[in-house]
Amino acid sequence: MTMEVQEKTESLLFEAVIAKKTPQIVGGKGIYVDIISEGVKHEKILDACTGAAVGALGWGDEEVYDMVNKSIREHTYSFPFFVGNPHAERLADFYISNSPPGVFSSAMWCGSGSESNENALRIIRQYQLERGKPEKLKIISRMQSYHGFTLGAMSISAGNRSEIFKDIMIDQENICLKMPVCYPYRYQRNDETEEQYSQRLLNSLEKIIVDNNPATVSAVVVETLPGSSLGTVTPPKGYLSGIRALCNKYDVIFMLDEVMCGTGRCNPNGKLNCWENFLTAEEAPDIQTVGKTLGSGYVTIAGVLVGPKIKNAYTNGSGMIFGSHTYASHGFNCSTALKIQKKIQRENLTSNIFQMGNLMGKTLRKTLVEEDNTIVGDVRGIGGFWSLEFIQDRLTKKPFPPEANVAKNFQKICFENKMNIMSMPGIIGDGTGDIALLSPSFIITESDVHEIISRICKCVKLITEKLQKEGYV
Amino acid sequence: MTMEVQEKTESLLFEAVIAKKTPQIVGGKGIYVDIISEGVKHEKILDACTGAAVGALGWGDEEVYDMVNKSIREHTYSFPFFVGNPHAERLADFYISNSPPGVFSSAMWCGSGSESNENALRIIRQYQLERGKPEKLKIISRMQSYHGFTLGAMSISAGNRSEIFKDIMIDQENICLKMPVCYPYRYQRNDETEEQYSQRLLNSLEKIIVDNNPATVSAVVVETLPGSSLGTVTPPKGYLSGIRALCNKYDVIFMLDEVMCGTGRCNPNGKLNCWENFLTAEEAPDIQTVGKTLGSGYVTIAGVLVGPKIKNAYTNGSGMIFGSHTYASHGFNCSTALKIQKKIQRENLTSNIFQMGNLMGKTLRKTLVEEDNTIVGDVRGIGGFWSLEFIQDRLTKKPFPPEANVAKNFQKICFENKMNIMSMPGIIGDGTGDIALLSPSFIITESDVHEIISRICKCVKLITEKLQKEGYV
Repeated sequence: MTMEVQEKTESLLFEAVIAKKTPQIVGGKGIYVDIISEGVKHEKILDACTGAAVGALGWGDEEVYDMVNKSIREHTYSFPFFVGNPHAERLADFYISNSPPGVFSSAMWCGSGSESNENALRIIRQYQLERGKPEKLKIISRMQSYHGFTLGAMSISAGNRSEIFKDIMIDQENICLKMPVCYPYRYQRNDETEEQYSQRLLNSLEKIIVDNNPATVSAVVVETLPGSSLGTVTPPKGYLSGIRALCNKYDVIFMLDEVMCGTGRCNPNGKLNCWENFLTAEEAPDIQTVGKTLGSGYVTIAGVLVGPKIKNAYTNGSGMIFGSHTYASHGFNCSTALKIQKKIQRENLTSNIFQMGNLMGKTLRKTLVEEDNTIVGDVRGIGGFWSLEFIQDRLTKKPFPPEANVAKNFQKICFENKMNIMSMPGIIGDGTGDIALLSPSFIITESDVHEIISRICKCVKLITEKLQKEGYV
Repeated sequence: MTMEVQEKTESLLFEAVIAKKTPQIVGGKGIYVDIISEGVKHEKILDACTGAAVGALGWGDEEVYDMVNKSIREHTYSFPFFVGNPHAERLADFYISNSPPGVFSSAMWCGSGSESNENALRIIRQYQLERGKPEKLKIISRMQSYHGFTLGAMSISAGNRSEIFKDIMIDQENICLKMPVCYPYRYQRNDETEEQYSQRLLNSLEKIIVDNNPATVSAVVVETLPGSSLGTVTPPKGYLSGIRALCNKYDVIFMLDEVMCGTGRCNPNGKLNCWENFLTAEEAPDIQTVGKTLGSGYVTIAGVLVGPKIKNAYTNGSGMIFGSHTYASHGFNCSTALKIQKKIQRENLTSNIFQMGNLMGKTLRKTLVEEDNTIVGDVRGIGGFWSLEFIQDRLTKKPFPPEANVAKNFQKICFENKMNIMSMPGIIGDGTGDIALLSPSFIITESDVHEIISRICKCVKLITEKLQKEGYV
């Protein structure tokens, strides 16, 4: 249902298109949202990406309203450097208890994924100082990666959102080093097995560590499943465990960024961490960042999970962190997030999204990649997090030229067909490479899955017709 | 009233003292909070610092509970890069409308003061690129300053909280430059007037700009009123307007950090900005960060106010920001913050705290500095934000040695006397220099003010006795 409404088109917000309003969200219920765009109200848009993979529960959840109402009454602000609160402790206990035993022993809660990655970098740096290794400075992360929109987080990222800020970043030659992207669809050779490709990447990483003096290397940071930077590339066999082994070999911290893929979005055991798909508890990260579905879009919360290795270095050292974010451990946010996580657990929603998401992704792959010769070259992902990669040529995997605007136009066509998805251009790193991301609510049913599949297939057909008309295919 | 309670002393939170619980806040009403410390529940602790200058309204405000309850029902999550929401727009409108006309034309809302300073640095960098000045890279901030706990924000800070991270910061030689601290109590010479001291500082700044090639200088950043880094030093006459003039002269952005001192804490006109005490609208900053009292500790929100000069460079250039924080413009946080700000406005609480705070600060100065020869060498501040600086010797202003632990012990003694204050050691920059900060709720009455004064004076007496016993005085 659509209807015309009055609205100002000028925006006072300094983001996206400056001075011009983006479409405005004005309501939501379950997996549907209501949006006003260019003076027209569009009702019941199917939300297949929950903003930016934020939503775990559906929108407009009456139980969450009750949780919020309860949490605010339980909350009195505390400044963590001097005073704590029981809500932050309980959320830490929940996350640690719902991760494999012994993996995490501490948590810190902050306000965004960017901030959690910043805090992790700070915690890792102090860890090296606590154990008397001040020369361990260097952080190795990946090409075409994204860890946030603050300067420290952008310094360990590489891609089109951080590129223009490279001149004011932390030293990219001597501190924030980059290893090759892990991107089997494009870079695994035809004569290579998955394991051989992993080994080639691990050899590159080991060479970077050795060439840069292992005694000066502090940490390796990767997204378990890269999100908007590359489109849900599942790590090839042996890749993450190989990084873990190299970190052990060279006394380097292994950090996973699960801000987008973690906290139930892709867990095979009805629990929280994405890495449980790929690593044993013995291979777990030393430190991990989380966010997004932790507050399910209702409250703004993210965090850092810290393992015993790092914690022990602190307790055997100075035993403290000097300073704090004002809003770290925020009682209301922690209290609400905990109630949300308990509801997800009680209703087995992590298991549901793992099953439903895999049904969605695998069906799309079968339909668009295996059975039909479409402009979708790859469908990849796991659990509740999937991506489509668009290509001009199936055989050569040649991407569309940037001026074809495939990512943006696909998102637009989806919206015209009453569905929100998240698209990103430029993922290959030279301005080309178009992906569309799907990250629905954990509550989706089998019927919702088929509706998403049906609309995606329709929109792929529509954009193909448009690209044909424009001479791109 | 105190009572013994059971509690675990182990903490699962990775902050403050690792693995050990800080005192836990368990409730609050008005200007009082309830805290459990070492197994004992302390009720009705007078909160004279509202955590870290966060509180505008009192704790446990039933009207805020209703606001929160209403705001969560009005909220559906939106990812700002694609979709906006009316609450973020309305909060921007409120802040811009309650600042002098023409000063600000845009706002972006994020999750913490650190994040707002990170975003400001990013916005300033893109501004220089938009207008074709890529060589303008350098940011000049102050010695002994604090702009946040993320790596970019720490890179423009200088002091004991950021010092240990210097080896992983943004280049301190070529990008993040530092000018001298502005600290009249300690560094204004006896043979200098306030204006002459300002001029000496401005000469230093101008020399840094000129020596570093003005064509490569991008911005000057200062806290209008430094908070925890230095203790509410009011800028001497001509200082801030002189920085504004130098920024104009050399085509440099003038940025004010009002995260701690802004949003009503120190405004003389019943409005929002602290700089209105010291600058005309024509001298206003080009960009400004805010936080803390914006959400009054109930919701976690901060922001960046952007003036027309920067906005126009964007709209005349690319017209957009590529990317966004997931939680920027968060509808629920913006909606609640707006309701809180409207209540503050309706009840004239900015005027109240300006008047009551000045009464508190001036009376403390009269009592502890002017009339009596105490270990408090200076009482400084404005409106709702004041500091005491402790010294061992009135004449030489010699600080106490770090091992006397004056800041920490004063805070402890205040707590034993049922009052929370915020203290910071090491503000002079060599490990010495103890301050205590007062930043009460905007709701305090004259009787509350006298209660705070009375307890402070008592605690100054108690710590003096302790220091006498220990041989420090």
